[in-house]
Formats: sequence, C-alpha cells, structure tokens
Amino acid sequence: MIATGVIVEYNPFHNGHLHHIRQSRKETNADIVIAVMSGHFLQRGEPAFVDKWTRTQMALASGADLVIELPYVYATAQASDFAKGGISLLEALNCDFFSFGSEEGSITPFLNSYSLLQEHNDTLQQLVRNSIQTGISYPQALNIAYKQLIPNNEQSFVDLSKPNNILGFHYIEAAYKIQANIKAVTIQRIKAGYHDAIGIDSSIASATGIRKAVFEEASIEGISSYMPQTSFKGLEEWQYTNASFGSWEAFWPLLRFTIIRHTPQELSTFAEVTEGIEYLLLSAAKNSENFANFMQQVKSKRYTWTRIQRMLTHIFTGFTWERLKSFEQPSYIRLLGMTENGQKYLSANKKEFTLPIISRVASSDDAMLMQDIQATDLYMLALNGPVNTKRMGLDYKTPPIRM
Amino acid sequence: MIATGVIVEYNPFHNGHLHHIRQSRKETNADIVIAVMSGHFLQRGEPAFVDKWTRTQMALASGADLVIELPYVYATAQASDFAKGGISLLEALNCDFFSFGSEEGSITPFLNSYSLLQEHNDTLQQLVRNSIQTGISYPQALNIAYKQLIPNNEQSFVDLSKPNNILGFHYIEAAYKIQANIKAVTIQRIKAGYHDAIGIDSSIASATGIRKAVFEEASIEGISSYMPQTSFKGLEEWQYTNASFGSWEAFWPLLRFTIIRHTPQELSTFAEVTEGIEYLLLSAAKNSENFANFMQQVKSKRYTWTRIQRMLTHIFTGFTWERLKSFEQPSYIRLLGMTENGQKYLSANKKEFTLPIISRVASSDDAMLMQDIQATDLYMLALNGPVNTKRMGLDYKTPPIRM
Repeated sequence: MIATGVIVEYNPFHNGHLHHIRQSRKETNADIVIAVMSGHFLQRGEPAFVDKWTRTQMALASGADLVIELPYVYATAQASDFAKGGISLLEALNCDFFSFGSEEGSITPFLNSYSLLQEHNDTLQQLVRNSIQTGISYPQALNIAYKQLIPNNEQSFVDLSKPNNILGFHYIEAAYKIQANIKAVTIQRIKAGYHDAIGIDSSIASATGIRKAVFEEASIEGISSYMPQTSFKGLEEWQYTNASFGSWEAFWPLLRFTIIRHTPQELSTFAEVTEGIEYLLLSAAKNSENFANFMQQVKSKRYTWTRIQRMLTHIFTGFTWERLKSFEQPSYIRLLGMTENGQKYLSANKKEFTLPIISRVASSDDAMLMQDIQATDLYMLALNGPVNTKRMGLDYKTPPIRM
Repeated sequence: MIATGVIVEYNPFHNGHLHHIRQSRKETNADIVIAVMSGHFLQRGEPAFVDKWTRTQMALASGADLVIELPYVYATAQASDFAKGGISLLEALNCDFFSFGSEEGSITPFLNSYSLLQEHNDTLQQLVRNSIQTGISYPQALNIAYKQLIPNNEQSFVDLSKPNNILGFHYIEAAYKIQANIKAVTIQRIKAGYHDAIGIDSSIASATGIRKAVFEEASIEGISSYMPQTSFKGLEEWQYTNASFGSWEAFWPLLRFTIIRHTPQELSTFAEVTEGIEYLLLSAAKNSENFANFMQQVKSKRYTWTRIQRMLTHIFTGFTWERLKSFEQPSYIRLLGMTENGQKYLSANKKEFTLPIISRVASSDDAMLMQDIQATDLYMLALNGPVNTKRMGLDYKTPPIRM
C-alpha cells in the first residue's frame, strides 16, 4: 500500500482542501491518505473554528483515510517546529510521501532553496541580524536576507514571501533534519491565496476568507458553495449544538481575565512571550473591551499578528517556555478517525510504526498528550460558557471516528 | 484626641455594625473611630458583596471617621494573620484602643485564655496533633485541645468555639506579639450570630444572613430594615450600575476556567493549597456547572468551607505561597475615605504614624499595594463581564472618599 501524508488544519475543510487531497492521491498513486491535523489551537495562534472531531469527520468524508492529531506543542508552534511535528508523525506512520499545497507548485525549487540556505547559513543569519535592527519582523528580515542570497544562475528558487511556500520549505527542511525516508511532493494551490476573501463565481476560497465571511455575516449561508456538502453539514450541526464558532473574539472575556490575572513577570514565562511585550499585553488587555481593539493596541512592526496570537494561545492555555522546552519530539500517534481503508493500513503496518498508536487516551499519561487534553477542556469552556459539564474531558469520552 | 480602631469587612454594613461603632465610641470615649476594612476579597475567602468604595461610603455615613484598607494579604488570611494585619495598622495609626464585637462581651476572659495558651503552648500543640489525626479540621482540633487545657478554677475563659470570640482572641494575641501600645476593648454582639439568617421582627441580622436573603430573593427589598438607610441606598445604587453582587456563584465561569487552566502542580503553588486537594479541585471544577455543586464535591471533614474558599480566592487572583511569604508586615496605610474629623486626626497625628499614608496609589509601587490594585481589577472583570474598560485601574482613578 502506498501511503501519502498531508499536514493540515481544515479550519474548516473546503474545496481547496478537497483538491489537495485528490491531487495528492493521484500524483503519488496513493492507496491511502493520512492527514496529520491540528487540534483545538492552530498555527496562526487561534482557537479552531470548530472542534477537532467535527473537522475529522469532514476530512474522512472527503478523502482522508486516517486523521492523526498534531499535538498542541507542534500545532501552535512557529513554522519550523510545526513542520517538524508533522513530518515526524508521517515518518513514524511509515508514509511514502508527504504532499503539501504551495504557490510554487513544483518541488525542485524547494530543494534548491534548501541547499542554498544550508550552504550559506552563517551569511544568512548575519543578514537577518542586520535587517532586524531596522525594526521589522523576523519573517520579513528572513525573506529579505534570503533574496539577497539568491544567485543569478539557471537554477530556480522558491519565493519564500508566500505563506504556503514557507511552510513547504520547512517541511522539506524537517525531513532532511530528521533524516526521514519520506519523499516530498507539492501540489499547486488553485486560485485562492492564503488570506483571500470569498469571491463571486468561484468554488474556491481560503479558510481564512470563509471564517471571516461567517463572522461578518453572522451566518454560514454564504459559504456553502466553497466546501463539500459534508463539510457544510458539519458546520450546520456545530451551529446547532454550540453557542458560537471558535474565535478570540468569542474567547475574549476569558483571555482578558487570564492576561490581567498575571504579573508581567509571570506573563513572560509563557511560551513565545519575549522582549518586554508583557507590559503592552497587560495594559492593552485592561483598555480593551474586545479582541479587535486589543490587537490594534498590541500590533507593531516588530511582531507579526500571528506571533502575537501564538503568545496569546500559550497564555490562554498556561503553556510555559519551560513546558515547551521539555518536549523534544512527538511521543505518540493519536488517532482521531479512520475509514475502513485506514483501519486496514493500521493493521497491516503496525509493526513498522516507530511510535505507539493511541486510540483511547485513558491508556496513557504522556505529558504531551495531557496538553492536548487540557487544550480541549479550555476550548470547550470558552466556547460554551458554564453550562458544559458534559463537554469536559471529551478526549476521554470520544473514541476515534469511523467512517 | 482619643482614637479607637475597629477591624471590619462591612459586607454589607448593617445595624449590628452601627451598634458596634456607637458602643465602641461610647465605651472608649473616642473622638474618632478608625475602621481598617478589607478590600475586594474577604476573610471567609469570598469576593466582596459590593466594592470597597461603596462599603467605605456606608461606613463614613454611619460613624467611622477614617476608613483604611486592610491589604489583600491580610484580608484573605487565616484569623491570626488577618488579626496581625489589622492590629498592626491600628497601632501604626497611633490608636489608643481597638474594639471588637464578641459573643463573650468582656475582655478579661480573653486575656486569661491568652495567658493560658501561651503558658501551655507545647501541650496544646500535642493535643491538636492527636485530635487532627481523627480526620477533623484544624479549627475543630484546636478548640477541643483548648477545652482540655482549661483548669477548674475561678478564672473565666472565653468560649473559643464562637467565631467572633476566635477573631477577638487573635486580635489580642497579635497585639501582644507586636508589643503594641493599643489597648483591647470588646463589645457584646447583639442577637444575631455570625451566620444567622434574617428573621422576623428584628432590626439585627448578620451580614451572611443579609447576603443570603438577597441571593435567594434576587432582590434587596427584604433587607432594608436591617441596615442604616445610607447603607441601603448604597446597595440600591450598586444594583443600578453593576451586573450583579459579588459572589463565587457569579464569578464561577472565570474561577472554573482558572482552576482547569492549571496543572495540579501549578495549583499547589497557590497560597493555602496543600495536601493533595489540588486533584480534587480540578476534578470537581470539571464536573460542576455552578459553584454550589463544586463546593459539595470539595467539602470534607478535613477542610472548613472557609479554608477551601480562601484557596479559591488565591487561585482566582493568582496569589502564590511564594508571594504570601514575601510579605512580613503591612507596609503602608491606604486611605479609602475620611470625614472632616478624620482628616483633622490625620493632620494632627501625621508625625506619629509609623507607616506612610497613601491617598493616591500612583505615588507608590509597593508590591503589597500592587496586589490590592490587581484584586480590584479582577473583581471588576468578574462582576461586570467584558464591557468594563472604564472599571479597570479604579484604584488609580478613585481618590479617598470625603464625607
């Protein structure tokens, strides 16, 4: 069986994701597609739009055979660690390929860029240090330095100012670093940019655009043409049983209280909080009745929106630098859902897996897993207010979804 | 000028408090009455019913000349530290007397009991250790041990099973320990026990009874006869401008989230959390949609209700054992309100005060004071939800009340 892995958020699952799964299956001639998917907090530092089980269902209904949880530690990390977590899990699952969507669309430029940056790493770091002193963000500085390094020859290099190219680059870097056997494939993304709004006469929109449309219209009606029917049904059911879709705006009362409850010294112990921003976080939280207003006050040239949101995620969940540093690599394969085909793959390949498969969390007390379980509780508390006793400990109560 | 101090919560101010102030003034022939009053979290480990400025106004309207804040550190501490904070402040304010309400009503039995317990302290501790092994709470064990020590002679001793007698005993102990010049006076409490419900045909009820009546009836109408008109007016105004009266029930969503956000190990770092109760706090928080249900699960023979609530107070405000231990004695006199008479006393006695008077908090960055300021922010956040930007930093914006 040829197994191809994808590293995803499906927040929510839409037609672009469907295209990616289908093309990945086709181009790698895959018998099975394995999705490593983030849980309740995402790489941009946001709470998930809907919970991980709803998103698992969407994925299984649209072509994924196995859905594995990317642990909180990696799902909420900067690109290089996010990639490391995802690639490590796919490698542990004995995948033949990993396939990512990119603006670039072909794999050679990624490999060229990786070699270039490996070779000139010292120069790169020096250029970044120079750039960053002008007050720009780290990703911007990195991109400027990278462009300065590109030689004028016949090789082509990937444009690392594009968000999906960046992620792709980090996947390849991660695969090299862990000396993985897994091989890289990339699928060209169609039409929608990462942050694009939903448009007219199109069936493709970015997940960001879809979420934005739902929050602005306070309705999911306008987005049905951008996703498989099964995904839309998932959102309808979610709306029926939950007070809201996940967002910092909805979680703001709890996030705000949590920030204000801490001293600046304590805030600086949470992962990603650095360089005195804790004072700004505190004063902005005190001055802001909503999240949008808070971000206006905190945002600066120095920090990307995403970086700030990742700090907030870790403050919200109480995830410290110390805990972050205690985790070195994924320690389990958490099964969220499977098709029959996926189950066959698990049975047939069990012995090849280099990490334990966890289908029932009660059987483990792994510290990394405890972090995922707690993230679920906090997500559910924030989403549904006090009347949610039955939604505590959902990781213990929810078996893998079968489809 | 003769100055007499009282240590109070006024939660809310009622006719029993009025009686206490009047009798204290009369019996000590006082020119001025100074109230050292708790801020937004109280000795039973609860959020205040109404804020400290409303309670200050009530006190000034009913006979107090100066209202001084008892810092969070002492206001939320067990009786001996609560007493130490209060007595230290009254001594620093150069008071001649302190006067407390008690079931006992005369001072000699308190002095006798204090001498007895001083003399037989080792025996007492041994008896307590023996008792506590039967699984009862510390206060119960202490009371049993104390009764065993009382000799059969003509001296009278105070009944230390009564809550106000216990507090009174600790005031006297504190005064001895800090070698204070201040002299003790006690006023017999009339009619209502500490926890008594409001009754028929009476103008005296306990503050606990008054709060209970308000929460049960969801109205303040029934309690007007138990308090001065000015106090009742204060409650009416409070109700007009605030979403609710302070209570753990109202604060439960935030308290619950805060408990669940912490690991057991982190919970055990908060002041008063000991002996493995952190696991119980966590599981009960997950299982409880409201505070009453939570307490049912956490309450045991081992811990008094009050003790558990004090833990919750410290978890809510993020107040750790480490911070608790960093404070040795009151470091300032925070002025919440004054009458003209009170102001005269301040001017005339300034030079005698052994601690700095703080009328505007912006002029200080004392760590103990920062704790009070943060407690105000958290109290206001919990009370009024997200729409409360103007209620952040109230300690900076509110000058001492003048009446």
